[in-house]
Amino acid sequence: MMKNIIKSVKGTRDFYPEEMAKRQWLIEKIRETSQLFGYEAYDGPCLETIELYAAKSGEELVKEQAFVFPDRSGELIALRPELTPTLARMVAAQQNALTFPLRWWSFGPFWRYERPQKGRSREFFQWNIDLIGVEGVEADAELIAVAATFFRNLGLRPDQVQILVNNRKLMEAELNRIGISAELRPAVLRLIDRIDKQPAEVWDENVLRLGLLPDQLSSLKALLANKDLWQQSEELQALFKQLEALGVAEFVSYDPKIIRGLDYYTGTVFEAHDMTGEFRAILGGGHYANLVEDVGGKPLPGVGFAMGDVVIMLLLEALGLIPEQKSASKAVLVTVFDEATQAIAMRTAARLRDEGVQVILYPEADKLSKQLKYADRLGARLALFIGPDEVAENTVVIKDLATHQQESVPMQALVERVKNLLA
Amino acid sequence: MMKNIIKSVKGTRDFYPEEMAKRQWLIEKIRETSQLFGYEAYDGPCLETIELYAAKSGEELVKEQAFVFPDRSGELIALRPELTPTLARMVAAQQNALTFPLRWWSFGPFWRYERPQKGRSREFFQWNIDLIGVEGVEADAELIAVAATFFRNLGLRPDQVQILVNNRKLMEAELNRIGISAELRPAVLRLIDRIDKQPAEVWDENVLRLGLLPDQLSSLKALLANKDLWQQSEELQALFKQLEALGVAEFVSYDPKIIRGLDYYTGTVFEAHDMTGEFRAILGGGHYANLVEDVGGKPLPGVGFAMGDVVIMLLLEALGLIPEQKSASKAVLVTVFDEATQAIAMRTAARLRDEGVQVILYPEADKLSKQLKYADRLGARLALFIGPDEVAENTVVIKDLATHQQESVPMQALVERVKNLLA
Repeated sequence: MMKNIIKSVKGTRDFYPEEMAKRQWLIEKIRETSQLFGYEAYDGPCLETIELYAAKSGEELVKEQAFVFPDRSGELIALRPELTPTLARMVAAQQNALTFPLRWWSFGPFWRYERPQKGRSREFFQWNIDLIGVEGVEADAELIAVAATFFRNLGLRPDQVQILVNNRKLMEAELNRIGISAELRPAVLRLIDRIDKQPAEVWDENVLRLGLLPDQLSSLKALLANKDLWQQSEELQALFKQLEALGVAEFVSYDPKIIRGLDYYTGTVFEAHDMTGEFRAILGGGHYANLVEDVGGKPLPGVGFAMGDVVIMLLLEALGLIPEQKSASKAVLVTVFDEATQAIAMRTAARLRDEGVQVILYPEADKLSKQLKYADRLGARLALFIGPDEVAENTVVIKDLATHQQESVPMQALVERVKNLLA
Repeated sequence: MMKNIIKSVKGTRDFYPEEMAKRQWLIEKIRETSQLFGYEAYDGPCLETIELYAAKSGEELVKEQAFVFPDRSGELIALRPELTPTLARMVAAQQNALTFPLRWWSFGPFWRYERPQKGRSREFFQWNIDLIGVEGVEADAELIAVAATFFRNLGLRPDQVQILVNNRKLMEAELNRIGISAELRPAVLRLIDRIDKQPAEVWDENVLRLGLLPDQLSSLKALLANKDLWQQSEELQALFKQLEALGVAEFVSYDPKIIRGLDYYTGTVFEAHDMTGEFRAILGGGHYANLVEDVGGKPLPGVGFAMGDVVIMLLLEALGLIPEQKSASKAVLVTVFDEATQAIAMRTAARLRDEGVQVILYPEADKLSKQLKYADRLGARLALFIGPDEVAENTVVIKDLATHQQESVPMQALVERVKNLLA
């Protein structure tokens, strides 16, 4: 009787070569864009102590969403749910040795115990990128330009994706202006952050329940509908001018409803969304006044964003923007005619590899039709044949698997001919 | 009072940009070599159920070394200590859809709860590479050729590193020949695997304690000293011939003491070692008769090896074979003269990035000497200056930070000139 195949863990993904090629393609786009702006790659551990997240992350993230477990010595360890606490720890530990401003990016796995659903998985990958040690809004403009340039490099257009921007200081001032007290403001900001996830009446009720007067609710709603509110903020005025100079303004719009959940943002905040509204936020980030003080460092401002791999790939897939990945399209399959010629097939494979040619050597002297079928299924570009006749004449037959043409070439001309055909 | 900086988890590593660049360099060497032989990248989850490892891994690995914890639903989950069980699960799940032979490779993080020491960390990276669906020794030759080609690509010489080869069937036959029963053989093989980790008398005692006669101990020791034992194995004879044809024989030697700990190896086994004997094994692998039956698939032979990132990097470091990684060596630093010229500095940065030039934009109008010092510390290649004079003349000053020469070029000639200087 056949046993059942053991299952994978819920919310994790298997990356078969086809999916892996797409993930690798995405990483290369991330790397190109990050490097274009002079950012350096770094990485932290996947495991951190629970103390680190207690000091730095929002409560929901650690208590409700992190995978936490005791190690064999009893210490509580978490699988990283986000990278910022690790970044803060690493910067704090080397604060006197590092050259500021720091431009750092990273890509790696993260874990959150969420209900698996469209656009969410429990094990996911995330791009993190931060500019640290700059107080001014120039830093915010640069990170938004990084995001916009990334979208452009993927082939996304401004009518397909927009980076929505707001400013925490502006919102604090505006909430103050309509008479919402400093104590109430964090709760109001959290509600604004969720306004698109609740029916309008429920949201109104929730606002009134916080203690706002009906008058204040109206003012708040007017404020959230005011697309010109940014003109009240010198920072946002400067930011939009700089985004113009950086050539990315077409990808950016103002939205007073953008707040971002994390408590540590203090200035510009932003989120990228697809324009159909079909998907969750693609990426999100903002300006923080102080990255490292909570973990033991000296105050340090900066700006950063994080992008998961799931939503962006769903969007690119929907828009047909992921190019077909063919790993064998530059490969040569070397066939094996019989046992007597196997050694010369091996030597030929080694000779081509020495010259940097990707060679798949058929592992045994099987029927040639089977070997050719295998080459076709892999999508190899060329197949080589060395039978007894070729050995006697010191030649090789090259078959072009795209055009189906074949030719016989002298062994000493093989490398050059193969390279020409692959070029 | 200054708080203490929160510590990282014991046995984990922080990858600051300099270390990360080395890790990235190693990955690229792994990718190049894997692709040269036609292998496709894949990856599995970092989390798997404990059932998977119970079915596939050796007992020591799961019970003593894996990080195991219950998830929020109570299911026992392990952080992967090795990739082979995941590979088996993935292949079994798609066994009817995949094109065999499969050539797959992977690089990613793994976790083992080991005492942190030289050459070991609790969180490490591993290269896994497998050729699946081939019975013959040709598959073994190919994987050994992959390892040898990888060493060659790193600049390692055969007098610095050797791949030591043995064969499980040969050892079974030889143990049988000297009268060691089938039941005793697994225990004897495990002792051979540890012969270099115990003093000779202790090892002898352990062998006798298993129930071997003093005579058999002598025969066993003679056998383990016999470097020509491979001539008793048709598989090893064929293997060495093929390694010759593949051009990698100089990196391979026979060693009757090579066994490998894992129970699922059934034929060729191999380990790579540095010739000074300073470090642990660099990589290890072997031939298995059946990858997927334990997890619910149909029998499938193959061969594979795994290499951790720690030992190979220690060895390369010791031999001075890791090239200096300079991330900014192709970068242009665009300085900001004052607030009035900041927008034109930004436009210039954007224009160069549009042409694929890596640009670090100084974030504010700071003292030029400070901006230049920053460029030097990053190791940038060029610095650009656009002050009021340059704006008036529509020019840019380019300073070569290597030669300290500077020149003024018309704005419209900038891109071409910068590209020439960087080429």
